[in-house]
Amino acid sequence: MVDIATRVWNHKWKIDPIVRSLIDTDFYKLLMCQSVFRNHPDTQVTFSLINRTKTIRLAELVDEGELREQLDHIRSLRLTRGESTWLRGNTFYGKRQMFTSAFMEWFENLQLPPYHLEKKDGQYELTFEGTWPEVMLWEIPALAVIMELRSRAVLRDLGKFELQVLYARAMTKLWEKVDQLKPIPDLRVADFGTRRRHSYLWQDWCVQAMMEGLGNNFTGTSNCRIAMMREIEAIGTNAHELPMVYAALADSDTALRQSPYDVLADWQEEHDGNLRIILPDTFGTKGFLQGAPDWLAGWTGIRVDSGDPATGAETAINWWKSRGEDPRDKLVIFSDGLDVDKIAQLHKQFAGRVRVSFGWGTMLTNDFKGLVANDGLAPFSLVCKAVAANGRPTVKLSDNPNKAMGPADEIVRYKRVFGVGEQEKLEVVV
Amino acid sequence: MVDIATRVWNHKWKIDPIVRSLIDTDFYKLLMCQSVFRNHPDTQVTFSLINRTKTIRLAELVDEGELREQLDHIRSLRLTRGESTWLRGNTFYGKRQMFTSAFMEWFENLQLPPYHLEKKDGQYELTFEGTWPEVMLWEIPALAVIMELRSRAVLRDLGKFELQVLYARAMTKLWEKVDQLKPIPDLRVADFGTRRRHSYLWQDWCVQAMMEGLGNNFTGTSNCRIAMMREIEAIGTNAHELPMVYAALADSDTALRQSPYDVLADWQEEHDGNLRIILPDTFGTKGFLQGAPDWLAGWTGIRVDSGDPATGAETAINWWKSRGEDPRDKLVIFSDGLDVDKIAQLHKQFAGRVRVSFGWGTMLTNDFKGLVANDGLAPFSLVCKAVAANGRPTVKLSDNPNKAMGPADEIVRYKRVFGVGEQEKLEVVV
Repeated sequence: MVDIATRVWNHKWKIDPIVRSLIDTDFYKLLMCQSVFRNHPDTQVTFSLINRTKTIRLAELVDEGELREQLDHIRSLRLTRGESTWLRGNTFYGKRQMFTSAFMEWFENLQLPPYHLEKKDGQYELTFEGTWPEVMLWEIPALAVIMELRSRAVLRDLGKFELQVLYARAMTKLWEKVDQLKPIPDLRVADFGTRRRHSYLWQDWCVQAMMEGLGNNFTGTSNCRIAMMREIEAIGTNAHELPMVYAALADSDTALRQSPYDVLADWQEEHDGNLRIILPDTFGTKGFLQGAPDWLAGWTGIRVDSGDPATGAETAINWWKSRGEDPRDKLVIFSDGLDVDKIAQLHKQFAGRVRVSFGWGTMLTNDFKGLVANDGLAPFSLVCKAVAANGRPTVKLSDNPNKAMGPADEIVRYKRVFGVGEQEKLEVVV
Repeated sequence: MVDIATRVWNHKWKIDPIVRSLIDTDFYKLLMCQSVFRNHPDTQVTFSLINRTKTIRLAELVDEGELREQLDHIRSLRLTRGESTWLRGNTFYGKRQMFTSAFMEWFENLQLPPYHLEKKDGQYELTFEGTWPEVMLWEIPALAVIMELRSRAVLRDLGKFELQVLYARAMTKLWEKVDQLKPIPDLRVADFGTRRRHSYLWQDWCVQAMMEGLGNNFTGTSNCRIAMMREIEAIGTNAHELPMVYAALADSDTALRQSPYDVLADWQEEHDGNLRIILPDTFGTKGFLQGAPDWLAGWTGIRVDSGDPATGAETAINWWKSRGEDPRDKLVIFSDGLDVDKIAQLHKQFAGRVRVSFGWGTMLTNDFKGLVANDGLAPFSLVCKAVAANGRPTVKLSDNPNKAMGPADEIVRYKRVFGVGEQEKLEVVV
C-alpha cells in the first residue's frame, strides 16, 4: 500500500537537513556559552572556518548554493519547547538545573547571527562575526554542514546498490571496532564525533552501535540532540576557545600569562566534580602546569588533546605527584586522534595509575577510509576557530606546532610569554 | 507521518511468507516438469526430504506449527495471471513459447499435492506422494521453507541492532566476493542458490548485487520469480531426478543400463542449443560417457555436479576428443560446491580449452558462515529427492560416494550394471 500523502509530503519537504536543531551541537559549547554569557556577553569575536587539509578543495566539491541553503536553514532554527524542557529538566553530570534561567531565556530567543561566505583558492572562506555567546554556537553546525555536504557530494555519484554496500561496509567496520573495545575492562569511552561526522544519521547510528555493543562502558555523547533522543548522557567540559579569547583580551604580557588561569577561575565558580577538567595545552602543557596555582591541582582531571598522548598523561601524573596529589584519584581524558588501537594501548598503559577516559571523535563517526574510489570519503582536518576577539587576533600554540594558529609575530610573543621551547611536530590527520 | 492503514494491514497480514509464488522455484524444475508431463504424466513418485547434516537437529530448531503453516501456504498458491503471462510470453534461452499450451493449462490449474510430516530422531520426515509432475514441484519450495525457517529460528534471538550488523556483514562479505569475480575476463556465472538460500529476500538481494557488480558476466538466476521481477534470464536445464526415476522404472538390467540415455533422447526431442546439456554423473560419469551413443557427443555441453570438478571436466574433454568433437566448442557447467576461489581456479584452468560456465549456489545465497554465535547460520546439506517411482526405490551413485543414495542392495546392483568401480570419497559441505 502506498501512502500517497507521505509520498507527496516527501516530494516537497527536505527530509534531512544537515543540522536539524540548535542542540545538534556539542554539550561543551552550551556549557562554555553559559560561562561566556555570564562573564563576557559583549565581547566581539570572529570565528572562521579553516581546512587544514588543503588537498581537499572544498569549493570545487561542495556547491555554494547548497551550502548557503544549509546555513540559512540553521539560521531559521530556534530552540524548541521540547529541547528547552530537556535542557532545563535533565541532569547533566549528575546535577539538575545546570543551565540558569537567565541563560535559558536568552537561548530560547536566539537566532544564530549572519555568516559571511566567499570562495578563495578552491576553498570556502566562511566567517561569523558578532557577540561571543552567539557566534560561538556556529562552530559545530558549520563544521557538520561542510563535512556532510562533502559526503553528499561524493555519494551523489553512487548507485543505489553501491550506497547500500558502502553503508554495510561502514557498519561492519564500526562493529568490528566495537568488538575490539568490548573486552577492555572498565573502559570509559564517549562519542566526541559531532564536528567531523560523516552525517547526522550516521553519527546517530554509531551512537546506537556503541550503546548496544558497550553498554555502560559507553559513557555518552557530546551531541546534545542525540543524547536527548537516545536518553543517554551528554558529555563535555570546555575547549581552547576560552583561553584563546581570554588571552587575546589581555592587555599586557603579565595579563596574558595569567589569562588561562582566569578561565579556570571563572569555570570553578560554576562547576565542580567531573566538570573540573583542565585543558592545559592551548599555550603548551608544560609551562601551563609549572605556572599553575595550587587550587588547580585539586581539580578532577586533565584532557590531553594534542602532542603525544602518553607523554601528556605522564606529564600530568608527574605534576599531580609534585603537588602532593594522588594520580589514582585523577581523571585523564584522551581526546585527540583516537582510534581503537590507540584507545586499547593508552588504556593498558594508564589504567590503574589514573582514572582513564576517552573522547572518541572522527574515527568513530567518520571512518569511511578506503570505502570509495580515490578515498573520496576519508575524513579530513577541518576546524572552525575564534580568530579574533575585540579586534585582536587569537593564538593557539598547542603541544603540536602543526596545530598552532595565529599571526606569526603573535606566536613568537606567546611562545616567549608562556616559555614554550622546542616542540615535536606530529602529523595532524583528523 | 504514520500511515495507519498500512500499519494495521501489517498487523494482520503475514508480510513475508517464505515461498510467495509457485514460480519461486528453479527454472529447470519447470522444464523437467513439462518433459515429465508429456512423457510420464501418470508415474507415481515419492519425494522425501533428507538432511545430510545430522548434527543440525531440525525438529528441535524449527517449530512444527510454523512449518505446517508455511507448507499449507504453499498449497494455497496458484499460478497468477502475471506469472502465466510471463511463462507464456517470455523468451527462455532465446526461444519463445518454451512451454506448450497443454502444459500451461495444466500448470494454471495446479495445486501442489498434500504433504506428510512427522518428527523422528530430532529430524523432520517430510514426504510428498502423487503423480510425478505434481510432486516434483514440491522439491524447491520444501527446501526453501526448511532453510528459511531454520534461519528465522536462529535470528529470533538477535536484537534489532545485531540483526542490522549481521546483514551489513553478510552484504560486505558477498560484495567482496563480487569484487573478486569482477576481474575474471569473460566470466559466465549464474545464481543456482534457490534451494539452500538463507531467505527469499536475501537471495533477491544477492541477485541484485551480482547484476550490478558483474553486469553481463552474470548470466541470470535459476529462480523464475526473481528472473521475472528483475527482468533477467531464467537459467537451468535438467537434474538427476530424470535418470533416477527412469532407472527405477526400468524392468531389466538392460533397460536400466539404457535408461539414462532414454532421458536424453526424450530431452532432445524438445530442446536444442544451450539446453542440450548432459548431466552425466547420476550413475558414474566415466561409464556413462563410455557407453554414450554418438548423437550425445553432438550435444552442447556437460554439467559437472559431483566428484572433483577439474577431473570431471578433463574427463569430458577427453571424451569429446575421442568422439571427434572440438572441446573449444563445448560448454562445461560447474555447479557443485562452488565459491569464488574455486570459480577463479576452474576458470583459469579451463577457459579457452572449453566454454566455461558456473552455477553458483549455496555459497552465493547462504554464506552466513561465522556471522553468528556457534555458527548457527552456517549453510548445511539438505536435499529433497525422488526416493521411489511406481513403488520401486530410486538410486543415485554420483561421482562421490558420500552423495550416493538408495537401498544398499540396489546400489550394489546399479554399480554392477553401470560398471562403477572404486570412487573417491569427497566431503559434502553444502
